[in-house]
Amino acid sequence: MRLATLDIEGRSQAAVETSRGFVGLPFSNVGDLLRVPRWREIAEQNLSGDVLVSISEATYLAVVTEPRKVICCGLNYRDHILETGRDLPSFPTLFTKYADSLAAPFAELSFGSESNEIDWEAELAVVVGAEVKNCSPEQAVSAIAGYTISNDISMRDWQRRTLQWFQGKAFDTSTPLGPVLVTPDECDPKAGLVITCHVNGEEMQHGNTSTLVFDSAALISYISRFTTLRPGDVILTGTPGGVGMAQTPPKFLRDGDVLVTSIEGIGELRNLISIHN
Amino acid sequence: MRLATLDIEGRSQAAVETSRGFVGLPFSNVGDLLRVPRWREIAEQNLSGDVLVSISEATYLAVVTEPRKVICCGLNYRDHILETGRDLPSFPTLFTKYADSLAAPFAELSFGSESNEIDWEAELAVVVGAEVKNCSPEQAVSAIAGYTISNDISMRDWQRRTLQWFQGKAFDTSTPLGPVLVTPDECDPKAGLVITCHVNGEEMQHGNTSTLVFDSAALISYISRFTTLRPGDVILTGTPGGVGMAQTPPKFLRDGDVLVTSIEGIGELRNLISIHN
Repeated sequence: MRLATLDIEGRSQAAVETSRGFVGLPFSNVGDLLRVPRWREIAEQNLSGDVLVSISEATYLAVVTEPRKVICCGLNYRDHILETGRDLPSFPTLFTKYADSLAAPFAELSFGSESNEIDWEAELAVVVGAEVKNCSPEQAVSAIAGYTISNDISMRDWQRRTLQWFQGKAFDTSTPLGPVLVTPDECDPKAGLVITCHVNGEEMQHGNTSTLVFDSAALISYISRFTTLRPGDVILTGTPGGVGMAQTPPKFLRDGDVLVTSIEGIGELRNLISIHN
Repeated sequence: MRLATLDIEGRSQAAVETSRGFVGLPFSNVGDLLRVPRWREIAEQNLSGDVLVSISEATYLAVVTEPRKVICCGLNYRDHILETGRDLPSFPTLFTKYADSLAAPFAELSFGSESNEIDWEAELAVVVGAEVKNCSPEQAVSAIAGYTISNDISMRDWQRRTLQWFQGKAFDTSTPLGPVLVTPDECDPKAGLVITCHVNGEEMQHGNTSTLVFDSAALISYISRFTTLRPGDVILTGTPGGVGMAQTPPKFLRDGDVLVTSIEGIGELRNLISIHN
């Protein structure tokens, strides 16, 4: 199944994608749907319902709008870590964003003059579908609601101001998320999905989710050892090589740039960057 | 005023302290009270109301139970930074916890075998009382609801596993918060409040809030440049010298230890540490 949170005449609504278009679900967003233990069954029962809006005319919101936790993993693509000469990590490097950090998948992303180094990071995001604490990687598999796309847009100047990256990672509306949540029966990142990031049509990042050091279940299991994860929580799994600060010379986003982030089998984010000084 | 979130026969309720005892307020916790713009007026109007419970018989919960954001500042006590030979920082070092990280001010704090290096960090916490984005330090002053006490209990082994401290800082129920929120008219950390931490009666930390590099208003203003702060959000302002990992040899909390965290004019947290392997 492919689930989305849509803007229907100014109102937020969860929906399930069918070959005929999006069918509405009786929840205001996908996060609220996931909080109902029978969410899969409810969504499946609605697959034959009336079409709410066609796919081409849908207005997408962030696929999950109010997660309690948005946890990000850094340094997680094996090929990228090895090419930089580092050893593979024993533990995932984790930091956080907020619900306020999220943005719609096709939103114009507006930034002020706070940062001069706005960079891209294409990432596979996994959305939690059950409450877990101290779960094994095997148990974590069944706690995965599905997968979506994000771009962990990072203010490198703020990120480097101190030892802790958080302040460069949690700018409001810096992180597009969506457009759809694809359930694991239709999407297998371990088998390998191509992930790319293009700026103004030029491919800047090209990776494969099969090279993640810590896969989605490993991350959920690890995080659950110190804190409870709940339905609708979001985990960003890290970015492959090719970010702007690693270019020679470094390259950052400018006013008017078009940022496209894609993952095979899920779709793409497309965001116009607007920088007003 | 001194506000608290109390457990009244298994139900959570906001209350205001009077010389007669706690008077109940029509909100389930202090965070919900703060979300009403007229919160000061409402609390003041209730000062003459009927006593709900005496101060000695009150059962305290975390003074704010469901903050959307809990942001912590590291390396913020001037005397402690200078004694370690470092320069004073230009920017605050920020990391995060969650509402799930919080605990009641007199709770027994139970930990499993995940960490062997459980350490203390006595901290002044400031609670936000208005929505702010891009505010000046002067505007931030009026967005302060009040001050309370926290202990940013840190799992040093997890904190040092990677470059990012978050995973050692966000263990569920690791951070007692309370017992009361004291409004700024009765509490001025800039003028200097003694902050201490005792383990089994031995003083381990002794600092003064007048030596904070970034005071509460400076932190609110800085954070508001990248993300929106809202009523009930909590900011931990950092810890003075004397943490366990800095002792020779390093000293960590053990099963049965009693941890007392106090700030002049606010009160104290008292937590029995329970470690079950």
